[in-house]
Amino acid sequence: MRATSEPAPPSELVAARGALMRAEIGEQPQVLGRLLDEGRAAIGRVAAAVRSRRPRFALLAGRGTSDHAALYAKYLLEIRLGLPCGLVSPSTLTGYGARPDLDDVLWIVVSQSGGSPDLVESTTAARRCGAITVAVTNAPDSPLAAAAEFGVDVLAGPELAVAATKSYTAQLLALYLLVDALAEGDGAAARVLPGAVAAALDRADDVRACAQRYRFVERLVVTGRGYSYPSAREGALKIMETSYLSAHAFSAADLLHGPFAMIDTDRPVIAVAADGVGAVALDPVLTRLHDREADVLLIADERLLARWGGGRATVELALPAVAEEVAPVVQVVPLQLLALTMSVARGHDPDTPRGLSKVTETH
Amino acid sequence: MRATSEPAPPSELVAARGALMRAEIGEQPQVLGRLLDEGRAAIGRVAAAVRSRRPRFALLAGRGTSDHAALYAKYLLEIRLGLPCGLVSPSTLTGYGARPDLDDVLWIVVSQSGGSPDLVESTTAARRCGAITVAVTNAPDSPLAAAAEFGVDVLAGPELAVAATKSYTAQLLALYLLVDALAEGDGAAARVLPGAVAAALDRADDVRACAQRYRFVERLVVTGRGYSYPSAREGALKIMETSYLSAHAFSAADLLHGPFAMIDTDRPVIAVAADGVGAVALDPVLTRLHDREADVLLIADERLLARWGGGRATVELALPAVAEEVAPVVQVVPLQLLALTMSVARGHDPDTPRGLSKVTETH
Repeated sequence: MRATSEPAPPSELVAARGALMRAEIGEQPQVLGRLLDEGRAAIGRVAAAVRSRRPRFALLAGRGTSDHAALYAKYLLEIRLGLPCGLVSPSTLTGYGARPDLDDVLWIVVSQSGGSPDLVESTTAARRCGAITVAVTNAPDSPLAAAAEFGVDVLAGPELAVAATKSYTAQLLALYLLVDALAEGDGAAARVLPGAVAAALDRADDVRACAQRYRFVERLVVTGRGYSYPSAREGALKIMETSYLSAHAFSAADLLHGPFAMIDTDRPVIAVAADGVGAVALDPVLTRLHDREADVLLIADERLLARWGGGRATVELALPAVAEEVAPVVQVVPLQLLALTMSVARGHDPDTPRGLSKVTETH
Repeated sequence: MRATSEPAPPSELVAARGALMRAEIGEQPQVLGRLLDEGRAAIGRVAAAVRSRRPRFALLAGRGTSDHAALYAKYLLEIRLGLPCGLVSPSTLTGYGARPDLDDVLWIVVSQSGGSPDLVESTTAARRCGAITVAVTNAPDSPLAAAAEFGVDVLAGPELAVAATKSYTAQLLALYLLVDALAEGDGAAARVLPGAVAAALDRADDVRACAQRYRFVERLVVTGRGYSYPSAREGALKIMETSYLSAHAFSAADLLHGPFAMIDTDRPVIAVAADGVGAVALDPVLTRLHDREADVLLIADERLLARWGGGRATVELALPAVAEEVAPVVQVVPLQLLALTMSVARGHDPDTPRGLSKVTETH
């Protein structure tokens, strides 16, 4: 009876699993506060320099978690600045050697470590092609920061867990402050974020209850629309990289174009919504999911949940109310906690996911 | 003994399952030949008109399968024309009401039916904002074709199966001919496609053997790099929408940034490669997968497989050799056949996937 004769792991070992990731998730209110207090002025100077060059288009580049921050910035740039945007496939500049005319193109590259060779190489190529290059990193001395004309330091402090958490919310806030400054805003919507993230962290018990329901899930789908779509993408990635399940993210619109067929009662759906346009677009998709009797966890702004009045999901998880355009900073917190909790419950160590290292070198 | 006393379904019913999809997959050599013979001149006229307006930036829009054709066009436009490109999130123009300055922006929208309201609305908005609008559809009388200034008819004929197949390869070829004409090419690389697709169809037995190995798979990953990445995306979607498994597509670079942790010996990987830059970039990822003892099906150009000389995958599926930039037209064929075969083997009917209809109305 090998299974029962094996000793249980010492409890201090279980407690230690995910300790880094847990600590870094918990640091986020301080990280965001520091960026607001100490980082804003420098971001404002970068914005002023970029504005004077009058960009007409924007290209954004990132990999993994940083790609989701880039996707968030794409929504902001399009909606707040009316700037047509594209997410870059770095291989077109590196592998395929494309040399586009990038005059009056704003190139924003996002990376925690600033060390990925393909991002350094593509940013160098973009700058040579005439782009206004900005590197948003957590490493102002990195090769990527050196390759770009302008740098934004997200000031998240050393991040040791392989699964990025505090560097992601810091990237989101830095990108918000950058775009807001480009739009000559006063950044008011961001001031509440340290407090709202702290309040979201206080709801960890609700997340633990959700994680219990998912103890034996093998496959799940995460969805959102508009500003909440990057949160769905990042939540799915956190769950994949720490708990090894198939967590599939779709914009709620794309979900209806094909992937909807794989939804069944055994494949739970996590839907993410802020109070605004994205929620209006998500609503009919929630109805479709309800009609299919899908198990839906709805992570949403508490004002929105109150107004909707229940019935749209199997389980609801309420988040502090903030403006839709900064909601991704708050939305990702329960998804980070969910990934951490699910990983530890399954006997994994989210601080050392199998097959991954902190700096990923892609060429 | 209920299981054994249940009568087997009549064989004509089994044969009928997926009959539409099978027929439309089989039509592809004729569809591509027709587009080359009868569609090229009209595409050349659209290209000449677009060229005279000297676009500086391109935006591409599509949903589901058509989004993968748009992604293919993004690689082509960036590499062949050096035009910076972005994939559109239609909700920024529709839901969020962004009104960007789209002077000298080429807007290409791709849709089989030309009926999706959000694409019609966003194309109308883009045209009003100054964009040069081109609708690539299989429906020249559709609202989307009417909304755009220029139309490209992919001439695929009526597509009845819910899972798009022949309209996808026709979209790819139409987009290739359009970009090639913009680059003042002679379209030579495309001439072999009807024959190459016919040869790929002749290898259906090899695909059936692969489908046998996947009979009980619940989750799989599809990957590729560069031009082959849209093929990975489309292959995963076909498998999801007909066989209901979690088929997860990643660019081979993004796979290493997080999702790699979920690869294990029970989650097979399908890797797609053409002979060219994308394969060079994919190669180190295949080594990483081999080191993890992942089960890899490598669908690749026969020249490339011969040069690589084996050892990179568990199973290899050789495709006729074509130029890398048109390889996606050939690569998707075994993935379509795989989706069809897996679906029928699991007792589903790929012609009527649950929860889907042919025209998806997203707003």
